[in-house]
Amino acid sequence: MPKPDLLEFFDSPSDDAFVIEHISEEFTSVCPKTGHPDFGNVTLRYAPAAVCVELKSLKMYYQSFRNEGIFYEAVTNTIRDHLAASMSPRWLQIITDWKGRGGIKSRIIAQYGEVPAAWARG
Amino acid sequence: MPKPDLLEFFDSPSDDAFVIEHISEEFTSVCPKTGHPDFGNVTLRYAPAAVCVELKSLKMYYQSFRNEGIFYEAVTNTIRDHLAASMSPRWLQIITDWKGRGGIKSRIIAQYGEVPAAWARG
Amino acid sequence: MPKPDLLEFFDSPSDDAFVIEHISEEFTSVCPKTGHPDFGNVTLRYAPAAVCVELKSLKMYYQSFRNEGIFYEAVTNTIRDHLAASMSPRWLQIITDWKGRGGIKSRIIAQYGEVPAAWARG
Amino acid sequence: MPKPDLLEFFDSPSDDAFVIEHISEEFTSVCPKTGHPDFGNVTLRYAPAAVCVELKSLKMYYQSFRNEGIFYEAVTNTIRDHLAASMSPRWLQIITDWKGRGGIKSRIIAQYGEVPAAWARG
Amino acid sequence: MPKPDLLEFFDSPSDDAFVIEHISEEFTSVCPKTGHPDFGNVTLRYAPAAVCVELKSLKMYYQSFRNEGIFYEAVTNTIRDHLAASMSPRWLQIITDWKGRGGIKSRIIAQYGEVPAAWARG
Amino acid sequence: MPKPDLLEFFDSPSDDAFVIEHISEEFTSVCPKTGHPDFGNVTLRYAPAAVCVELKSLKMYYQSFRNEGIFYEAVTNTIRDHLAASMSPRWLQIITDWKGRGGIKSRIIAQYGEVPAAWARG
Amino acid sequence: MPKPDLLEFFDSPSDDAFVIEHISEEFTSVCPKTGHPDFGNVTLRYAPAAVCVELKSLKMYYQSFRNEGIFYEAVTNTIRDHLAASMSPRWLQIITDWKGRGGIKSRIIAQYGEVPAAWARG
Amino acid sequence: MPKPDLLEFFDSPSDDAFVIEHISEEFTSVCPKTGHPDFGNVTLRYAPAAVCVELKSLKMYYQSFRNEGIFYEAVTNTIRDHLAASMSPRWLQIITDWKGRGGIKSRIIAQYGEVPAAWARG
Amino acid sequence: MPKPDLLEFFDSPSDDAFVIEHISEEFTSVCPKTGHPDFGNVTLRYAPAAVCVELKSLKMYYQSFRNEGIFYEAVTNTIRDHLAASMSPRWLQIITDWKGRGGIKSRIIAQYGEVPAAWARG
Amino acid sequence: MPKPDLLEFFDSPSDDAFVIEHISEEFTSVCPKTGHPDFGNVTLRYAPAAVCVELKSLKMYYQSFRNEGIFYEAVTNTIRDHLAASMSPRWLQIITDWKGRGGIKSRIIAQYGEVPAAWARG
Repeated sequence: MPKPDLLEFFDSPSDDAFVIEHISEEFTSVCPKTGHPDFGNVTLRYAPAAVCVELKSLKMYYQSFRNEGIFYEAVTNTIRDHLAASMSPRWLQIITDWKGRGGIKSRIIAQYGEVPAAWARG
Repeated sequence: MPKPDLLEFFDSPSDDAFVIEHISEEFTSVCPKTGHPDFGNVTLRYAPAAVCVELKSLKMYYQSFRNEGIFYEAVTNTIRDHLAASMSPRWLQIITDWKGRGGIKSRIIAQYGEVPAAWARG
Repeated sequence: MPKPDLLEFFDSPSDDAFVIEHISEEFTSVCPKTGHPDFGNVTLRYAPAAVCVELKSLKMYYQSFRNEGIFYEAVTNTIRDHLAASMSPRWLQIITDWKGRGGIKSRIIAQYGEVPAAWARG
Repeated sequence: MPKPDLLEFFDSPSDDAFVIEHISEEFTSVCPKTGHPDFGNVTLRYAPAAVCVELKSLKMYYQSFRNEGIFYEAVTNTIRDHLAASMSPRWLQIITDWKGRGGIKSRIIAQYGEVPAAWARG
Repeated sequence: MPKPDLLEFFDSPSDDAFVIEHISEEFTSVCPKTGHPDFGNVTLRYAPAAVCVELKSLKMYYQSFRNEGIFYEAVTNTIRDHLAASMSPRWLQIITDWKGRGGIKSRIIAQYGEVPAAWARG
Repeated sequence: MPKPDLLEFFDSPSDDAFVIEHISEEFTSVCPKTGHPDFGNVTLRYAPAAVCVELKSLKMYYQSFRNEGIFYEAVTNTIRDHLAASMSPRWLQIITDWKGRGGIKSRIIAQYGEVPAAWARG
Repeated sequence: MPKPDLLEFFDSPSDDAFVIEHISEEFTSVCPKTGHPDFGNVTLRYAPAAVCVELKSLKMYYQSFRNEGIFYEAVTNTIRDHLAASMSPRWLQIITDWKGRGGIKSRIIAQYGEVPAAWARG
Repeated sequence: MPKPDLLEFFDSPSDDAFVIEHISEEFTSVCPKTGHPDFGNVTLRYAPAAVCVELKSLKMYYQSFRNEGIFYEAVTNTIRDHLAASMSPRWLQIITDWKGRGGIKSRIIAQYGEVPAAWARG
Repeated sequence: MPKPDLLEFFDSPSDDAFVIEHISEEFTSVCPKTGHPDFGNVTLRYAPAAVCVELKSLKMYYQSFRNEGIFYEAVTNTIRDHLAASMSPRWLQIITDWKGRGGIKSRIIAQYGEVPAAWARG
Repeated sequence: MPKPDLLEFFDSPSDDAFVIEHISEEFTSVCPKTGHPDFGNVTLRYAPAAVCVELKSLKMYYQSFRNEGIFYEAVTNTIRDHLAASMSPRWLQIITDWKGRGGIKSRIIAQYGEVPAAWARG
């Protein structure tokens, strides 16, 4: 079961806005319909306000989905909700890229807040 | 014959707007002029309103074009029309990429609604 | 000699605007200065109004440049002029990419109308 | 149903051994177990003896598998058998590369005769 | 726990030797030392004697490693042993490619029998 | 310890704004938590005002992080602060790309000023 | 010594604005500090007003930097100045990409005028 | 019509065997069946005996196929015959790679003599 | 200083010969001539006899070169000697790939024993 | 003029045979026929006997070809002769890769001695 309480945070090293991206290439959960495992990449992009997420705790949080039966769209929105609620960032985006099922590859994008104009070309 | 009634839907897991992309790399139909098969990729991108399209039903719907004689441009607009009518999404885009014919590769893009500003960099 | 009367058209399958791209990877003409053949790709992108260009006739039209002595810049503007005049599209763009000459690769872009805002991220 | 009688041949332009490779990127058949279409590339490599296979007839022959229920391994050996029987080449190899099913991509290689030592580095 | 009895087989469609390759891009097991999941690709290459492995059963067999604590080297040799024992192929090779751990990517290759000379350039 | 006094500058060769990008593919520092080395690329992009940074001095400055225990986010903001303070550029951006840790690759972007509109498509 | 008088021009084949890009992959000059040769690519992008630059003369002009001691930033601004002064284009951009020195790759961008809105997506 | 008398030669700069490869990416001839142009790459590899082929004359020779109706297999063997007859090299190989026709890409390899063992890993 | 006593080993999971490859993308040492850091990849390939090298200990061993002044060729032979002496493998190969210095990229290959014929195509 | 006396050497760090490869991506000389500069990569591969070539001296030696009028084939054999004569290696190979001229890219390979069997798969 996804465990958001595994997430740990540290103070942002700058009062200015900046952008952080963490790409996990080792995400797996289980399809609730077929029981087969799903595999994907999870990209987290955010502009921290007061805190940043600690990298190892993020990895442990992602691992808590390993044997969870959950659809692509729900994985994406759940991670967005957990991270937005616990970090209150200036902006946050979750992108999940899933390996093909039946010849179809999928990608889901959920967001919290709007990307600041200054960063639009980052 | 394309069968839009094969499409099935499920409730969106979030009231917020988010973006879903499904890329099918196994689309084939038949050229109505030469009778030879056409092969291409079909990319569906949309921001769901109330419902999302179920992945296996989308695959079966695409398969219903397999022996249909239909031009590239019509395939693209037909899929756009069927999916927009049945999902009433916030925004939807169909991109078809066709393997070369006579040394010419083609790509057709049809859209429903306008991509929300917040997603323009997704 | 370029023969625009080889071009054939068919009615657009949709009253809505949409975008069509045809990439020909087999274009050749002759350099009027050296007499050596030039080789390039020709990309046609357009939003049809009433009609679309038929693919095989486009191929034959491109072949009519095969033994023509004509500069890169003129090839690009000539194709733009012929297609814009015969189709009156909402928007049209011609991009030619030429293999290197003397260690310099070239790319020429000519346009008719402006790309509609709705398509700017297509 | 695969129709080997669609294949046509022409006399080899050389009495010397040489090697011909034709890669078809548009092969499709049907899985006899699930009824879903399979998509793959078919590579034919051979050293002709008296005759070469005509390219358009090869394409038509491949198209005759389109609605045939047949496994990967059987497709590969069937094509090998048909072409070897009708051309009696010095050497022939069929390689099929199949898009992923259930996260597994497959490749099957069948051969007739042995690649001549002189060509081993071709 | 790895379950070789999940494997199913079917008769080879040819009495001749030929080569089959199945690449699974969705393998995961658990590091017995750290408890963290490992992710990798598993490539099976073999020349069947009497039987071929059925693709879906191979997938289920690979999934039986999902929550097993086992080192890279043991995964590779275990799969080699299970498949060689149950198929008695002419030749078989298992290659596992593991995503990086501590900046080091690994690849293990185990084999049963020797690749026949005729196939060495396949 | 990072030594900003290693940085040397020369007068900009133009009074007009222009953009300079230096990509260092050989950056290393030390993780303050684990003591293991971190490896990454550091991209500096800026529009000079009066001065440009001298390339060899930039390299020496980057080398001064070699045995420093410092997090990704702090490396990025520290370089941004040092270079912005010593050059007072029209605009400056630091992008650090870090090799994977625990299956997660990271990228941090810090900025000084806003990219001038004229350069947005550079 | 850079010789702008080597440059030759011809009349633009169109009164409309269009865009021309010439990428030279064979540029070399000499570092004034170390005496070692520098190697790079020079990209010229412009929208002609009355005239276009002739390709062979551009090549000869670039060759006139071969034994010149000059910094990256000055090369870029010098070419921009020479071409802008002699062609008075609607818009012009010079991008130089330099091979690595001491593990750092560089890219310099100088511009004349602003890219017309209509071309921003070219 | 192919004109082997366009070929010019110069004395090999070494009495030792060595290997020369020239890859032409700008070959075109005409399909004798459809009248449509064919486009391909022609690779010449050889170990000279007394003479080497001069590069510009090779280009002119290739251009002499431009409006010739000739099949892929015949192009390859014709070039092999012309070059082998006029250079009497220690070894020579012609590889032609043709862009797709009807979804099938082709490659033809013809050879004169055997590649010396010493060069087999070149 | 390189510390071979950091290396730890475990018993090979198979009495049969098999091949293990570990690619470290995060190796750095110091050039003894200039004092500048060198960066490279180190690939270890071996066929174990009785023991295998433990992955984390290999990482720590590589880190012991971090501040060592040592040439490319000596790094490669030193690692070969340390690992061959402590593991007595059936076969072992060290390949180091170094980022460019002065426009020259280097690669050094040292070996212990001969690759068994059976593995030559692995 | 090529200056082999710029080359410096150091003692091989091992009595065993091993292989060294240096790839220079910044070679330029002048075409003796047209006077235009030629650009290429030069790869040196060798198995040292008593001595290794020092990297910076190799760079200076290559630079001595900068303004020399010399054909591709002669460059390759000249470098082979100079390095073989001054190092007396167990084996040495020079590969030059030249950017396209008139649509033709060239590659020349000259060798001294034979690659030892043990290294054939390096």
